[in-house]
Amino acid sequence: MFDETLQKISEHLMDSEDVVLLPHINADGDALGAALALGLALSDMGKNVDILLEEEVPSNLDFLPGQELIKTTPKDRYTTAVNIDNGDISRLGKREPYFWDAKIRLSIDHHATNRVEAHYSYVNIKSSATGEIVYDLILNYFKRNLNKDISICLYTAIVTDTGGFRYTNTTPETLMICADLMRYEIDFPYVIKKVFDMISYTKLYLMKKTINSLRLLENGKLAVSYLTYEDIQNYNVKNDDFEGLVNIGRNLEGVEVSVFLREDEEGNFRGNLRSNNYVDVSEIAEKFDGGGHKRAAGFNSTGPREKLIEKLIEVIVPKIRRETR
Amino acid sequence: MFDETLQKISEHLMDSEDVVLLPHINADGDALGAALALGLALSDMGKNVDILLEEEVPSNLDFLPGQELIKTTPKDRYTTAVNIDNGDISRLGKREPYFWDAKIRLSIDHHATNRVEAHYSYVNIKSSATGEIVYDLILNYFKRNLNKDISICLYTAIVTDTGGFRYTNTTPETLMICADLMRYEIDFPYVIKKVFDMISYTKLYLMKKTINSLRLLENGKLAVSYLTYEDIQNYNVKNDDFEGLVNIGRNLEGVEVSVFLREDEEGNFRGNLRSNNYVDVSEIAEKFDGGGHKRAAGFNSTGPREKLIEKLIEVIVPKIRRETR
Repeated sequence: MFDETLQKISEHLMDSEDVVLLPHINADGDALGAALALGLALSDMGKNVDILLEEEVPSNLDFLPGQELIKTTPKDRYTTAVNIDNGDISRLGKREPYFWDAKIRLSIDHHATNRVEAHYSYVNIKSSATGEIVYDLILNYFKRNLNKDISICLYTAIVTDTGGFRYTNTTPETLMICADLMRYEIDFPYVIKKVFDMISYTKLYLMKKTINSLRLLENGKLAVSYLTYEDIQNYNVKNDDFEGLVNIGRNLEGVEVSVFLREDEEGNFRGNLRSNNYVDVSEIAEKFDGGGHKRAAGFNSTGPREKLIEKLIEVIVPKIRRETR
Repeated sequence: MFDETLQKISEHLMDSEDVVLLPHINADGDALGAALALGLALSDMGKNVDILLEEEVPSNLDFLPGQELIKTTPKDRYTTAVNIDNGDISRLGKREPYFWDAKIRLSIDHHATNRVEAHYSYVNIKSSATGEIVYDLILNYFKRNLNKDISICLYTAIVTDTGGFRYTNTTPETLMICADLMRYEIDFPYVIKKVFDMISYTKLYLMKKTINSLRLLENGKLAVSYLTYEDIQNYNVKNDDFEGLVNIGRNLEGVEVSVFLREDEEGNFRGNLRSNNYVDVSEIAEKFDGGGHKRAAGFNSTGPREKLIEKLIEVIVPKIRRETR
């Protein structure tokens, strides 16, 4: 579908001699993949393209083509700057001045929360990834062909933000685009392996501790697991590392409710709650002054741990029993 | 692409009053999904359809529509029998007579090793799943529309056999078909969760034991893990349960070679080898009278375990060092 703003963005890019591409800090597969794909396309069109990052390329994305465009010594200023996959300009970090100093400021994003001010800002919340927008831009506005390198970048962008086509943001359009990208004979099993399967030491350690702590109650319908303050202190743990640990319990056969506690500070716990089919865990979280959705909720509470687990069991068990189908 | 055999199969099915559908034993998401989709389409066309299974529907597939077609009390014989997703007729188990007793014997499959004899046997090895063939059959030969129930079955079939679009058998056509299936507003995140994320007690126990046994050598480039005879005896372990355990080591950051040993009989080990980038593990396996491919190989050997691990390290370490890039 033709879009006036995207057309303007396209025209400005085609008129620019030098362009700086600015993905958000902690650039993930979508931010980096979309930036590299756009950079490669603009380079092919004879533009001088610099991509600026706040940090090193993460090791799970080190295979991405086009990294020669990533510069560590930027120019003083650029004619055109493009904010990429970023809904909040302060999330450019130290690179924010390159955006404001540019003569033409453009922005391409898919986040519903986007509030970036630019000369032209295109936000398509129906796109699963900013990579989908760049695909559209190159093909339908630049009127350029794709190639293998660009396809690898865009495929990486899309699989990252759709969790490998698992999240609800995946649309028929998403799959149609990826079908097209696959025609460039990209090694997509390798991309998926790099993006999703690689696991850090810290994560494996936390998984091990979580599995070892796991206990099952209520005929296996309730799973409780935790990490102690000591577990967490032992490693240099980032917030990301906790992601998915509550699902170890949730994915176990027969489990309806999974509770995962982590002791962020001594005696202070962050609790995650998940359910599979019928228990509304937001109601449980509310009893501990937390909140969330029916199938995913959270809360903060104080220990001692076993006391807290007892209180949780007291609240959860009647819900499991009452609502058993 | 029009196919003469598939046309004949279509004609016979449209002419039949009663049809029995026979997926292979231990029916997985593709065998069962393809059978249910075909069964639902034939039912809609007014046919009497029985699906016969060798076992119960597994719990991770219990959401599939059309299960009312699965019969536990078969007729004595059927006019038409269809062998589904099965390359070897003996893998129909006790149901084999229903195939031979039918007046018309048809077969639909995608396995390269297929050697089924039928009046009409269609094998398309380019199809990622038999579900892709059933999709083609319904749309282009029956000339019928899909519906939501059929789409759920076919989507399940395809994600099962492509590992969620991760395996090399996934083609642009695969994604185009799934894009079309998604248009029926199926709950695809739920399907993927059921097919892939659910984990059995046994599997979690084996994962825990494997993680706990994991050791890293050669600056983290070699991962060694194992299950003892005792570990395995403790649970009612099936061969399937070992799948993927070697990948715990392989997916760890920095690992090049992962070795996983399991003591199937006291003192007898099955070894799995995986590499990520440059070590040819088939050469390692050969030294232990095994074999395989560059990135995945296996062997059988005798213990004691630590002695065997020592021998493995001796063979693997020089390869990791010599070929370090």
